[in-house]
Amino acid sequence: MNDRILVAPTDLLGDGVFETVHLRPAGPWLLDEHLARLSRSAAIVGLPEPDLTPVRERVFDTTGVLRIVYTRTLLDISIAPFPESALRERHAGIRVLSADRGISVRRRPPWSITGAKSLSYAENFAARRWAIRQGADDLIWLSTEGYVLEAPTSSVVWLTGDELCTVPPAEADILPGITAGHLLSLAPSVGLRPAERMITLPELAAADTIWLTSSLRGMAEVTELDGIPRPRSPWTPRLLSLLGL
Amino acid sequence: MNDRILVAPTDLLGDGVFETVHLRPAGPWLLDEHLARLSRSAAIVGLPEPDLTPVRERVFDTTGVLRIVYTRTLLDISIAPFPESALRERHAGIRVLSADRGISVRRRPPWSITGAKSLSYAENFAARRWAIRQGADDLIWLSTEGYVLEAPTSSVVWLTGDELCTVPPAEADILPGITAGHLLSLAPSVGLRPAERMITLPELAAADTIWLTSSLRGMAEVTELDGIPRPRSPWTPRLLSLLGL
Repeated sequence: MNDRILVAPTDLLGDGVFETVHLRPAGPWLLDEHLARLSRSAAIVGLPEPDLTPVRERVFDTTGVLRIVYTRTLLDISIAPFPESALRERHAGIRVLSADRGISVRRRPPWSITGAKSLSYAENFAARRWAIRQGADDLIWLSTEGYVLEAPTSSVVWLTGDELCTVPPAEADILPGITAGHLLSLAPSVGLRPAERMITLPELAAADTIWLTSSLRGMAEVTELDGIPRPRSPWTPRLLSLLGL
Repeated sequence: MNDRILVAPTDLLGDGVFETVHLRPAGPWLLDEHLARLSRSAAIVGLPEPDLTPVRERVFDTTGVLRIVYTRTLLDISIAPFPESALRERHAGIRVLSADRGISVRRRPPWSITGAKSLSYAENFAARRWAIRQGADDLIWLSTEGYVLEAPTSSVVWLTGDELCTVPPAEADILPGITAGHLLSLAPSVGLRPAERMITLPELAAADTIWLTSSLRGMAEVTELDGIPRPRSPWTPRLLSLLGL
């Protein structure tokens, strides 16, 4: 825990990729999916295919958080305690703001790396700190065209009738959410229809329920969006249970 | 040279700031300006004011590149050899593409960190790799509104008549270029008038001369913009000499 690692100064320039995996009592949750996404992110930032044997062969005898970092010079595995805040948000829900990220989805540059989980995470942290200064817990990013994108460290999932939706990652040029994808794949088992849709903020606000999903939170229900309270959903405990939480 | 440093895993998430200083035979060039910018960048990403005594007190007995990295847990100083490419570009000039960064200057988010030299540099590297794949040496970023912003690791400076210009950093939400600022402050000594202007790509293309300026390159003349060759300027050696290069 809280290991220190030896790096080259250039490793500190955010030019690499990472994954955060929930270490559950049964082992690392959805590890294959995380490793596949790490490889995909690496390709987006022009890194060679990583050799993930050290991760696959490692035996994890603790719960908590597994972080895998891959740069041009290193593949590092570290383990940290599970953050209390994620547990709290999972059960109490979160108050969320929406905010224009100032980025267009229609005019993405050819070198765009927003679809990779890159180590250049400063904007994600800065946006989250801004939301907290406004008295919220988190924020949802919108494109300059008004489309719902993602949250700085989570995917947006919503329920309208019996349709469980998320944002299409390729079309929105966002990170494919592993928890969101897993949840949608399980939706039919509880009578819900999975779908991916580009939506605007008013459309999202009109959904029955909104969640932010991520590996550590699992899913956190949005109990307030832009200052407007939202009724709690009976689906939250059902879907958390689907995720084994 | 090429030291390895001991960091916390979270130091690898790009949530810090840095400076790159040219170590000349006379010492670190414009060190005070670089340290002031480091403090300013730190404030933008929500870091406490750094204690820069270790940098100010250090005696540098070599030439090359000084890199100062500041995160929530460390202040690191490392020295690397001067890159040959910077010397070459300074004398031979560079072929540059323009490209929309997909970011609006009119709709900057309140948490924007593009005015800081943050460690989240992956997009800068990715954009540069893209330009090189297109057969160019570098690129100039445009806002979605069509304004000239900056290059991934340089400022844009241009000459029109006797006016030596750069982009206003606060208005464009870009990094204040130290070399560009220094050059403009010296402009009157060679009969040029310094100015800061928001300009579009056609206006830039119509300038007499365009340079990309940075601490290591000093200034590199743009000899080709979007595939169109540009005549060499007699001002390049004069201004390089003003910079002591």
